[in-house]
Amino acid sequence: MRQQTGHDTAVLAVRRAVRGAVVALPPPHRDAPLLVACSGGADSLALAAGALAVRGAGAVQAAVVDHGLQDGSAERAAATAALLDGMGVAATVHRVDVTGKGGLEAAARRARYAALRSARPHPDSPVLLGHTLDDQAETVLLGLGRGSGARSLSGMREWDAPWCRPLLGLRRAVTRAACEAAGLPVWDDPHNSDPRFTRVRLRHEVLPLLEEVLAGGVAEALARTARQLREDGDALDAVAADLLGRASDPDPRSGLRLGPLDGVPAALRRRVLRAWLATVHVTALTDEHLRAADVLAGQGPDRGGVALPGGLELVRARGRLSVRPIRWPSGG
Amino acid sequence: MRQQTGHDTAVLAVRRAVRGAVVALPPPHRDAPLLVACSGGADSLALAAGALAVRGAGAVQAAVVDHGLQDGSAERAAATAALLDGMGVAATVHRVDVTGKGGLEAAARRARYAALRSARPHPDSPVLLGHTLDDQAETVLLGLGRGSGARSLSGMREWDAPWCRPLLGLRRAVTRAACEAAGLPVWDDPHNSDPRFTRVRLRHEVLPLLEEVLAGGVAEALARTARQLREDGDALDAVAADLLGRASDPDPRSGLRLGPLDGVPAALRRRVLRAWLATVHVTALTDEHLRAADVLAGQGPDRGGVALPGGLELVRARGRLSVRPIRWPSGG
Repeated sequence: MRQQTGHDTAVLAVRRAVRGAVVALPPPHRDAPLLVACSGGADSLALAAGALAVRGAGAVQAAVVDHGLQDGSAERAAATAALLDGMGVAATVHRVDVTGKGGLEAAARRARYAALRSARPHPDSPVLLGHTLDDQAETVLLGLGRGSGARSLSGMREWDAPWCRPLLGLRRAVTRAACEAAGLPVWDDPHNSDPRFTRVRLRHEVLPLLEEVLAGGVAEALARTARQLREDGDALDAVAADLLGRASDPDPRSGLRLGPLDGVPAALRRRVLRAWLATVHVTALTDEHLRAADVLAGQGPDRGGVALPGGLELVRARGRLSVRPIRWPSGG
Repeated sequence: MRQQTGHDTAVLAVRRAVRGAVVALPPPHRDAPLLVACSGGADSLALAAGALAVRGAGAVQAAVVDHGLQDGSAERAAATAALLDGMGVAATVHRVDVTGKGGLEAAARRARYAALRSARPHPDSPVLLGHTLDDQAETVLLGLGRGSGARSLSGMREWDAPWCRPLLGLRRAVTRAACEAAGLPVWDDPHNSDPRFTRVRLRHEVLPLLEEVLAGGVAEALARTARQLREDGDALDAVAADLLGRASDPDPRSGLRLGPLDGVPAALRRRVLRAWLATVHVTALTDEHLRAADVLAGQGPDRGGVALPGGLELVRARGRLSVRPIRWPSGG
């Protein structure tokens, strides 16, 4: 009888995580064939092996995205696809063009997600992504730098159709151990150690320093924080949606009734205002817009003058808020 | 005519911050004489000078706490008190004993806050503390390491009776510039550069690295995040208090009715459970306790078995939750 090793434990931990995530999917997605996004790195290889063990070869496919950003990326993608095929996971390579605004990382992510979406074997298929607890911790730190509150700290969701992230509760060390145990050759993307990327510096410089100064447990603490903030945000959104229902008429253009917002805490009122403004197609709101709108909502007298994006202004009249184009005084 | 300098701007910024914070105090506190907690450092000296300018000598006193932790601390405290007296702020020195559990920083804070509380010239007097935006950012980072969600990230409040923090929106550089402009000799506490303190390492190592990696604005982002999380938390607490009212009978021992919690988002339901358990004196709850309690609240069948602190268990019966001592099976 063979002694169970830490490596076997890692394989089982990955399988358990995949099984838990797939079982928790809502019905049309739960039974659809799975697509695993696989770079050839430890996280996504372990994920593919886990998905295969949980669902069997017929129900798992893989997509390898070739961003064309490094020499030999096409060969690299083909080798990963061949490895997956050899494991029993039918794999296809998708070459994408990384162009457009927002920096290289953002453009690569956009192109990758579009390719994965269209590579799904069935419209209900979930796309399994290999993000780990370490990725989640880095995402929270990136959000801290933006400083836009709970929204930017709440990290990635386990399920955000069609994206499914079964490994968010596992450390990167576990996926690596699982690959070693399964004899899977892991590819280490040189981008993952290139200090020109903010995320790489967070991983290799900031998080280790924070772990040292705060005496450990920081990655887990960041992931736990993300989860709680996500749940708090969902709860506030649900309460705000309920309030919006009570403050709205069937025609959103007739404005928002302020009566139901009386005595409601400010942070909740701002969420109602944000949700209502979205129904009349006012988006791209900053926290300053919402605070100014809330002051108008909370206090008379009836007046306009709160500027909104898109050349619009918010007006308060007869116990309602409404939106109209800003009227500039005519000359002469 | 003298040109206004950056230093004058700093003095005015401190005065404006103090005026804004004092005006925003609720009525019994707004008009009471102020007590400024002053260490002799730049933040609290600038605060004392600002309070004096805003309220005049008769309405401002200062307390200097001598923790007795450094050689010459008594002389240092006396010199600070003399400086304050010379400025026109009546100052007293309070020697405290730093003892008890939780480490030196925690024990010193407990002793200091107790001394300041009893040094108030009037029961309604607010105690002005010199915490700046930089202190707030460090507090948020400390909270990140604890990972207990929004509560540990929401930092310090501007007003939390009797504590008032007028400078939470100002950078440390501003208070230093204000002291220079006013010719006030600043004392630099050697504890503030002692790397044995976690906060000092966050200030001198972690935050500068984060600022570099995330391209600046991190301290402001952390402070903004703290404010938004505090407001979100207050909103959830208010909605939870309202729900608790609807789910409770006048006698809290008759248990919590589950009907009003039907369909309520989980994060909110957990807050209601926490608030209800506090009314029956069950505290020191972890997130795990609350999640287990919530599972019992959300699903039948009627049963007990969710262990709570203090040898208690949560029981579900006939649509209500209640608390009882854990009954151990008797032997034989």
